[in-house]
Amino acid sequence: MKFTIQRDRFVQSVQHVSKAISSRTTIPILTGIKIEASEEGVTLTGSDSDISIESFIPTEDGDHQLVELEQEGSIVLQARFFGDIVKKLPEDTIEIMVSNQFVTQLKSGSSVFNLNGLDPEEYPRLPEIAEENVFKMPKDLLKSIIRQTAFAVSTVETRPILTGIHWSLEDGHLTCTATDSHRLAMRHAQVETNTSDLEFSNVVIPGKSLNELNKILDDTDEWIDIIVTDNQILFKATNLLFFSRLLDGNYPATKNMIPTQSKTTVKLKAKNLLDAIERALLLSREGKNNVVNVKTIENNELEITSVTPEVGKVTEDVQSLDYTGDELRISFNGKNVIDALKVIESTEVEINFTGAMSPFVMKPAERDHMLHLFSPVRTY
Amino acid sequence: MKFTIQRDRFVQSVQHVSKAISSRTTIPILTGIKIEASEEGVTLTGSDSDISIESFIPTEDGDHQLVELEQEGSIVLQARFFGDIVKKLPEDTIEIMVSNQFVTQLKSGSSVFNLNGLDPEEYPRLPEIAEENVFKMPKDLLKSIIRQTAFAVSTVETRPILTGIHWSLEDGHLTCTATDSHRLAMRHAQVETNTSDLEFSNVVIPGKSLNELNKILDDTDEWIDIIVTDNQILFKATNLLFFSRLLDGNYPATKNMIPTQSKTTVKLKAKNLLDAIERALLLSREGKNNVVNVKTIENNELEITSVTPEVGKVTEDVQSLDYTGDELRISFNGKNVIDALKVIESTEVEINFTGAMSPFVMKPAERDHMLHLFSPVRTY
Repeated sequence: MKFTIQRDRFVQSVQHVSKAISSRTTIPILTGIKIEASEEGVTLTGSDSDISIESFIPTEDGDHQLVELEQEGSIVLQARFFGDIVKKLPEDTIEIMVSNQFVTQLKSGSSVFNLNGLDPEEYPRLPEIAEENVFKMPKDLLKSIIRQTAFAVSTVETRPILTGIHWSLEDGHLTCTATDSHRLAMRHAQVETNTSDLEFSNVVIPGKSLNELNKILDDTDEWIDIIVTDNQILFKATNLLFFSRLLDGNYPATKNMIPTQSKTTVKLKAKNLLDAIERALLLSREGKNNVVNVKTIENNELEITSVTPEVGKVTEDVQSLDYTGDELRISFNGKNVIDALKVIESTEVEINFTGAMSPFVMKPAERDHMLHLFSPVRTY
Repeated sequence: MKFTIQRDRFVQSVQHVSKAISSRTTIPILTGIKIEASEEGVTLTGSDSDISIESFIPTEDGDHQLVELEQEGSIVLQARFFGDIVKKLPEDTIEIMVSNQFVTQLKSGSSVFNLNGLDPEEYPRLPEIAEENVFKMPKDLLKSIIRQTAFAVSTVETRPILTGIHWSLEDGHLTCTATDSHRLAMRHAQVETNTSDLEFSNVVIPGKSLNELNKILDDTDEWIDIIVTDNQILFKATNLLFFSRLLDGNYPATKNMIPTQSKTTVKLKAKNLLDAIERALLLSREGKNNVVNVKTIENNELEITSVTPEVGKVTEDVQSLDYTGDELRISFNGKNVIDALKVIESTEVEINFTGAMSPFVMKPAERDHMLHLFSPVRTY
């Protein structure tokens, strides 16, 4: 294998596939990046067996030559040093050449690296996925969906299925749900399908996979194809394939958890609420529960308080924009509400309470595409 | 105690004095910030008994009223939460009021914090230092001196005196030296003294103290007064007092270590050398010694190599601007040279070698105000 490649593009591809590579893998070949050069271009692959990422650099991009191929071939190089090396090479191009025993020479200006490579024949093949049931959406929508749900997954492994995000599709309508059993985030979106009858209902994607995908995707309105199989999901964008395994098991029936009625409805400025809860939690950073107490006071104001006996007490008043229904007195995990407020992308939020001991719902004031559910906390 | 204060100025003072406060102190009162309000203004104090910092906010700054005093007094408040609280308060001003039992109320807009304070009478007094032997320099020069020497102190406690920076003054000429016994950084500067015969020769300031001072000082040419006593040094700027204890013991006689002759003199672009060594060390990140090997090749080029057997080998060629003397072959800790190159603030550097087994000197090519000394490493 021997080729010369534009450094910037190569660096970007290396960074992308490195997202799949874990230094803690027990399979030595998976600590490496597979590099494959052909007439069409250079393909890089990284995998930790849960996630696999393939990034392609075409020989030509429009009028711009990206790769100059002298000899086809492939090699696997240690990912650990590789990202830093290619980023710090001095010139705009890199010459990469494999010699005997998989030793690979990287040359850029007056800088020469001789790296011990691994046998590319040992690298596992990526799954082949039939492209029958495809749906698609713009990248920036996919990124929003991930950002607005993935934060709510469980981070403990006691119920592994809750570390994933549940996706269901019906009539071109995608519903994405994440919950750690104390809070739940749900996001709806319209997607395009190539067959009108495409639907599924128990696809659970690891939260970690979607977070890594979100880091790689640029925030544009280019379309991305998505293909779901029994145990895999494939995201397919220009020059990028992103595979993730799916989680096994049954996701809880979350629809029934969401209250449809409301005893108290409050509309608030999202930023005022966020700032007030953040300040209320300042003294309880060490406390594990992050509990804040909310009650109605005069003039439709909410009083938010938090007490940490050894340190002190915070009191915050938040003016509501609109208040209907019963007086309110409830305690909840303020950190969970902050997480949701940070992704809600709405200047005004509506909160529907159904009693001090019942879960409550928060959503953007004027839209129904997103919903956040929180359990209250008993404080006595 | 009761006063209202401009939040921005208060936040800045809290950040400054917090630099002296350690959460690991065994003296409970020192986990707090002392706040003292008088007609003249508000004084904040933080201390870990090694460093003490006093920041003053005057009642008026030019035409601008910073403090509105209602009642004089003082209190000690936990530093841990305090910085975050004052930073996140909603309004431009904060009202601070001490009530019974040292409970202190902070009020800003709709936000109210009630904090448990400590008895200010328990807070230790800062040392009183006679202002007889004062010398002074601009703040930005002091910051340069700290940045260009403090990185070279020892971080291990086997020889505590080497964790400090040695300062000596003679005829208005200040010499600052730091060494961890493998490398040495020396910086000279002219300072102003109020008495012509002011001199000292064994003042050793903890590196940590000077690093904290560097973080607090703004990079301006305002003057700062410096007063040295037997066991303390005081830095005195507008509205700021910074005390540090001095280290006990005799600092090694470093002057004799610096070679005055040279067998090989090389002039190089500082950035070329820095980049080449950084790349040469990329593969040895895990190695503890960071050794690079340098030898002369044709055309007055230096070849820098580094080998990590399991990973590979790096070769870098660096063109010299000027080369006189013998051929060269030497190995050294590349990380130490990188540290020096990062603070040397010169586009060209001159290196003087006196043999493969002798320390070598690097300095800016055209100036003599700074010098870096490195021990070679045996590689056989």
